[in-house]
Amino acid sequence: MAGSTFGTIFKITTWGESHGKALGVVIDGCPAGLKLCEDDIQQYLNRRKPGTSSITTPRKEDDSVEILSGVFEGRTTGTPISLMVRNTSQKSGDYSEIASFYRPGHADYTFDEKYGFRDYRGGGRSSGRETIGRVAAGAVAAKILKQMGITVFAYTRSIGPVHADMEHFDRDAVFSTPTAMPDRKASDEAVAYLEEAKKATDSVGGCMECIVEGLPAGIGDPVFEKLDANLAKAVMSIGAVKAVEIGDGCAVSGRKGSENNDAFRMNDGHVIKATNHAGGILGGISDGSTILVRAHVKPTPSVFLTQETVNKAGEEINVNIKGRHDPIIVPRAVVVMECMTALTVLDAMMVNMSAKLDSLIDFYTPAK
Amino acid sequence: MAGSTFGTIFKITTWGESHGKALGVVIDGCPAGLKLCEDDIQQYLNRRKPGTSSITTPRKEDDSVEILSGVFEGRTTGTPISLMVRNTSQKSGDYSEIASFYRPGHADYTFDEKYGFRDYRGGGRSSGRETIGRVAAGAVAAKILKQMGITVFAYTRSIGPVHADMEHFDRDAVFSTPTAMPDRKASDEAVAYLEEAKKATDSVGGCMECIVEGLPAGIGDPVFEKLDANLAKAVMSIGAVKAVEIGDGCAVSGRKGSENNDAFRMNDGHVIKATNHAGGILGGISDGSTILVRAHVKPTPSVFLTQETVNKAGEEINVNIKGRHDPIIVPRAVVVMECMTALTVLDAMMVNMSAKLDSLIDFYTPAK
Amino acid sequence: MAGSTFGTIFKITTWGESHGKALGVVIDGCPAGLKLCEDDIQQYLNRRKPGTSSITTPRKEDDSVEILSGVFEGRTTGTPISLMVRNTSQKSGDYSEIASFYRPGHADYTFDEKYGFRDYRGGGRSSGRETIGRVAAGAVAAKILKQMGITVFAYTRSIGPVHADMEHFDRDAVFSTPTAMPDRKASDEAVAYLEEAKKATDSVGGCMECIVEGLPAGIGDPVFEKLDANLAKAVMSIGAVKAVEIGDGCAVSGRKGSENNDAFRMNDGHVIKATNHAGGILGGISDGSTILVRAHVKPTPSVFLTQETVNKAGEEINVNIKGRHDPIIVPRAVVVMECMTALTVLDAMMVNMSAKLDSLIDFYTPAK
Amino acid sequence: MAGSTFGTIFKITTWGESHGKALGVVIDGCPAGLKLCEDDIQQYLNRRKPGTSSITTPRKEDDSVEILSGVFEGRTTGTPISLMVRNTSQKSGDYSEIASFYRPGHADYTFDEKYGFRDYRGGGRSSGRETIGRVAAGAVAAKILKQMGITVFAYTRSIGPVHADMEHFDRDAVFSTPTAMPDRKASDEAVAYLEEAKKATDSVGGCMECIVEGLPAGIGDPVFEKLDANLAKAVMSIGAVKAVEIGDGCAVSGRKGSENNDAFRMNDGHVIKATNHAGGILGGISDGSTILVRAHVKPTPSVFLTQETVNKAGEEINVNIKGRHDPIIVPRAVVVMECMTALTVLDAMMVNMSAKLDSLIDFYTPAK
Repeated sequence: MAGSTFGTIFKITTWGESHGKALGVVIDGCPAGLKLCEDDIQQYLNRRKPGTSSITTPRKEDDSVEILSGVFEGRTTGTPISLMVRNTSQKSGDYSEIASFYRPGHADYTFDEKYGFRDYRGGGRSSGRETIGRVAAGAVAAKILKQMGITVFAYTRSIGPVHADMEHFDRDAVFSTPTAMPDRKASDEAVAYLEEAKKATDSVGGCMECIVEGLPAGIGDPVFEKLDANLAKAVMSIGAVKAVEIGDGCAVSGRKGSENNDAFRMNDGHVIKATNHAGGILGGISDGSTILVRAHVKPTPSVFLTQETVNKAGEEINVNIKGRHDPIIVPRAVVVMECMTALTVLDAMMVNMSAKLDSLIDFYTPAK
Repeated sequence: MAGSTFGTIFKITTWGESHGKALGVVIDGCPAGLKLCEDDIQQYLNRRKPGTSSITTPRKEDDSVEILSGVFEGRTTGTPISLMVRNTSQKSGDYSEIASFYRPGHADYTFDEKYGFRDYRGGGRSSGRETIGRVAAGAVAAKILKQMGITVFAYTRSIGPVHADMEHFDRDAVFSTPTAMPDRKASDEAVAYLEEAKKATDSVGGCMECIVEGLPAGIGDPVFEKLDANLAKAVMSIGAVKAVEIGDGCAVSGRKGSENNDAFRMNDGHVIKATNHAGGILGGISDGSTILVRAHVKPTPSVFLTQETVNKAGEEINVNIKGRHDPIIVPRAVVVMECMTALTVLDAMMVNMSAKLDSLIDFYTPAK
Repeated sequence: MAGSTFGTIFKITTWGESHGKALGVVIDGCPAGLKLCEDDIQQYLNRRKPGTSSITTPRKEDDSVEILSGVFEGRTTGTPISLMVRNTSQKSGDYSEIASFYRPGHADYTFDEKYGFRDYRGGGRSSGRETIGRVAAGAVAAKILKQMGITVFAYTRSIGPVHADMEHFDRDAVFSTPTAMPDRKASDEAVAYLEEAKKATDSVGGCMECIVEGLPAGIGDPVFEKLDANLAKAVMSIGAVKAVEIGDGCAVSGRKGSENNDAFRMNDGHVIKATNHAGGILGGISDGSTILVRAHVKPTPSVFLTQETVNKAGEEINVNIKGRHDPIIVPRAVVVMECMTALTVLDAMMVNMSAKLDSLIDFYTPAK
Repeated sequence: MAGSTFGTIFKITTWGESHGKALGVVIDGCPAGLKLCEDDIQQYLNRRKPGTSSITTPRKEDDSVEILSGVFEGRTTGTPISLMVRNTSQKSGDYSEIASFYRPGHADYTFDEKYGFRDYRGGGRSSGRETIGRVAAGAVAAKILKQMGITVFAYTRSIGPVHADMEHFDRDAVFSTPTAMPDRKASDEAVAYLEEAKKATDSVGGCMECIVEGLPAGIGDPVFEKLDANLAKAVMSIGAVKAVEIGDGCAVSGRKGSENNDAFRMNDGHVIKATNHAGGILGGISDGSTILVRAHVKPTPSVFLTQETVNKAGEEINVNIKGRHDPIIVPRAVVVMECMTALTVLDAMMVNMSAKLDSLIDFYTPAK
């Protein structure tokens, strides 16, 4: 089926493989009148670039975005915005050997089962490079949200056994450490841990979080289109994510109701919550508190140890994967989580506009 | 927006409130020729009925399903199947008091913010009774899956601090204990724990799991329609679920790649995996192993302790919720998780049928 | 596939067969706060009732609607509105003979080919009774549009060779003649023509039109979701419709550009068009003029003359259809066209609300 | 809203403006294993190229397609196919004048009303160049259909008052005359008529038809997703189309049932119809006969006569449009109609695959 489209009104369709000619995204349903230039998008793409520290792959990916349509005289026109990044440094030769067998932890086997064969170069469509389209589109969504006073912000919560100290949250550290952790000390420890893993030709998992601040109450739809359900889908759709939590997440299953309920309070004429175990969502609808989503990411499956697997001929073999791979996925995936969250929240706001009859009538009869 | 529809080809639309006239579901896209009678569905609805033990609400909900359309001479016709359950024992009087304030942990406040007002009787559309439509539809999906040799099975993994022993999995216990745990000893402990919580007028959270056996490899679509992404949405959309894990879930964030990768093996001519950390899904596509989904469910928000909240007039007040409520949600939600999983898997199989050109051509040129 | 759902935000799902237990519709995405009672809907359903004149079937269809959900204290809550009409006077015995053969002009053969078998009673899902759900939902859409000053109005343009005089349009005649023609004289002629056809055990085709007044400019989306494209789909989906025209429709293919272009003018500070060949739509987007849609409806396929056909055994046979059928479909289909148009227009207005960035920002930051 | 996506399983998303950097389409859901190269697509694009005769614009549009993704080693992989055509010969200078006023018959005014402003260069997104994406995607759909023995074929039926003689249908003439008429004599007359209109700086309307041969019975879904309803939408969404007919279309409204019903016959063990007034569709589902769709296209709105209109300042003005425009749209739109029809039919076939339970079970249990 068609699995590359996301969203109802702010709808994106991504395309492209790791080693194809290019990757990109079409954003359809972007409101008209947004000031938009390539640099707005490039800033987000740069955050997912590798090659910037010892803990990312030394591969150079010079991902320059080009706006092909939908922007006229510096503003979006309301028609589809086509964004493209040409593949430049991908060498197909690196990957030819893996065509014949199934790498453990990768999608090689499942793609072959589904489609009969696969573009084996660098993982093809299942490569992390697929997220270029998500990030390019998310940059546009985030820019719109910002203009409504809504910020979406993701960071690394933990790497292997090293957890960031959330009590002394250091926002700047997210952008300046190679780990994207909000804690410089933990980041240093994590880097040391990663370098050891790398020496052992192994890889490491991690956890990332995303918060949304400034979102009004009332966003999200009951039953199947709950805001948390759509966030779970959005985040779980990022390759290597194996668990998604909202608010206190897994911890709630060990709790009493008296501990877990958030009391409502008044603050300066507004309803607030005394605590936020719920992560800003009640009954699938935003409650005006900070939205908090957490994702657990598996270790990079490309480890350089000898692994057991099978080949296309149905023989059990031992393999040693070569190439240049990140020892951890999380620091580069943080911006992807941020973008998927922004896309989900913005789309939910758009579909919410006719929830009240009065709002609909006022919208179309402004003179009254 | 319209949030009550789920699925692409096997598409369901649920409707109804806790204290309205009736609740139901329309299943559109069910294949023609399935033998279906009310009892097929009733069996599933009975599993979510309360009043069967000390740990569920003493409310009697006599939920009898009626097939209104889509079945002719005992078989589905391919046209919409409308299923309805009349509300019989709901007493609106019980709830009139809560109209004026926002219960902590419930969707009262967010519904008011979204829609301007709400049907406050028993939670209205945000009530657990909303799941009647999901379960009725899921029963049909599960019946179809069974005919293809695919079973979907959910159970309680933990209640508060009490965890089932998964080494000695007792399938029968799931159907015969009040906890739906696959472990009679743990179930007894959990019942004792729940009774204590009930005495303290408190409630308890828990964890449930669902496994899918017999699903062929190749189901699920890359990028946004990954099987795990859709399972995450399906399960997170169940009220009170705050976290969803696939396979080893959260545990992967603390692991090394060498521990987490599942080696491929050959078994009697088929590719299998030596372990199943992945939970049966690689790159969003089923790999032929058992699918495993886990959900963490918060404690019932209706606790009978005094709670702080605000009323519609914007005043901070103390409230004592009355009524008859389950001290735990999980045992009755297990069948809902099973049904949402069945719906997701069946729909993914249907949309997958044209993934290979050869399959499409063969389908329409059977003579060849 | 699931073919019974229509709309993106104002989304309806219909269900039910001619001779099943009931028929109905679920409206999901209706704004909260609309005053709605059963009589609002019943009035529309009454317009499609037969048995009111010599030119409709003498069958009695006492279609009483019941609101099952989504309305609380007389107002819509924003959650799904479930509407049901019980079948009461359908006698399955009348139809048993037709189970074995394919009626010319009906969907008997195609349903059997698609689904393997069919509910043959009264046409099952392909019966005109299927439109009950459309009309019930359309009544709600029309009520909302009226509150925004938008009226949707359909009538019979011609019956066989008898055309209404559009120069002397008589709106009242539409509601008081058995033909729904806006011209009493033409209506009388048409009745005479129909009675003659009926005597000859034959049936007659006709043409109907629908106009939308008060719709603001700017509604509809470019490319595939053009307002005229969605109107064409909505109206062509009504059984027996074989052609749809917008504005001057077919006539444009014989014209010069100089004749067909509508000049723009100013009127009291507003842009208007000097003529309306375009039928109120330019580039798929409403232009502020009256929307005009026309539909050509085939004669009732149930004629009582001897007809050639084949049976399920693959034998060529002669058949004489029995039963009670309308000699013409149009007068009862007029309200169906009106409802499909209302549903299309309202949904287009809802999805349009975020077309301009300024509108989106203003919507969520009203304090500015 | 997002109006640039079409289809459920074979889903396309088009993008690009007349004078932007490029135009293109993303095809998502194309089956894996199709042999596909740029020339397959280029052949279709060449059929919509202008500049090939006296009756098309002398503008040169050198539309070379590039496959950017989704094809590996000459075959589709099942992942999104991104197709792009760079704009090369568009000169924005030609159009600057029209920025200030609304051309009659064009979408200038409605785009401004919807979005607040517009890309006025060459019509922007409402230009006929938008169809490049449709044709590129349709070429792929048509190639798949051909492999199942299904052909889709469109041609010009009439130009102004000149109608092709359908009794002596000349298929070759469609590809070799400048009019795409299946009748060389009529084509010559039409060319003479067009040259006269051109001299008078006027333009001309026309009618085109599309037939689908080889489609099995049983394709299309009841109620809203009827095959004819989706064809009507697909074809009406082509700019300048103002009416869509299926089979005998408008003519049915003047007919008797005894004339209009198609008798069923047996032919070599297969059910066929003695006539095909229905145009191959009964109850919204294909009946195995030839599908016939007809579209009426308005004259090119860009005429060079003086026209009355208004400008953005709200003043009534006279304008003389300049530029190079086709005096008729139809001959170049024929391939667009063919492509939209192919896309609709293929998608309907894909969503139909699970209509029967037996087919679904057989598909997933081939060993049986």
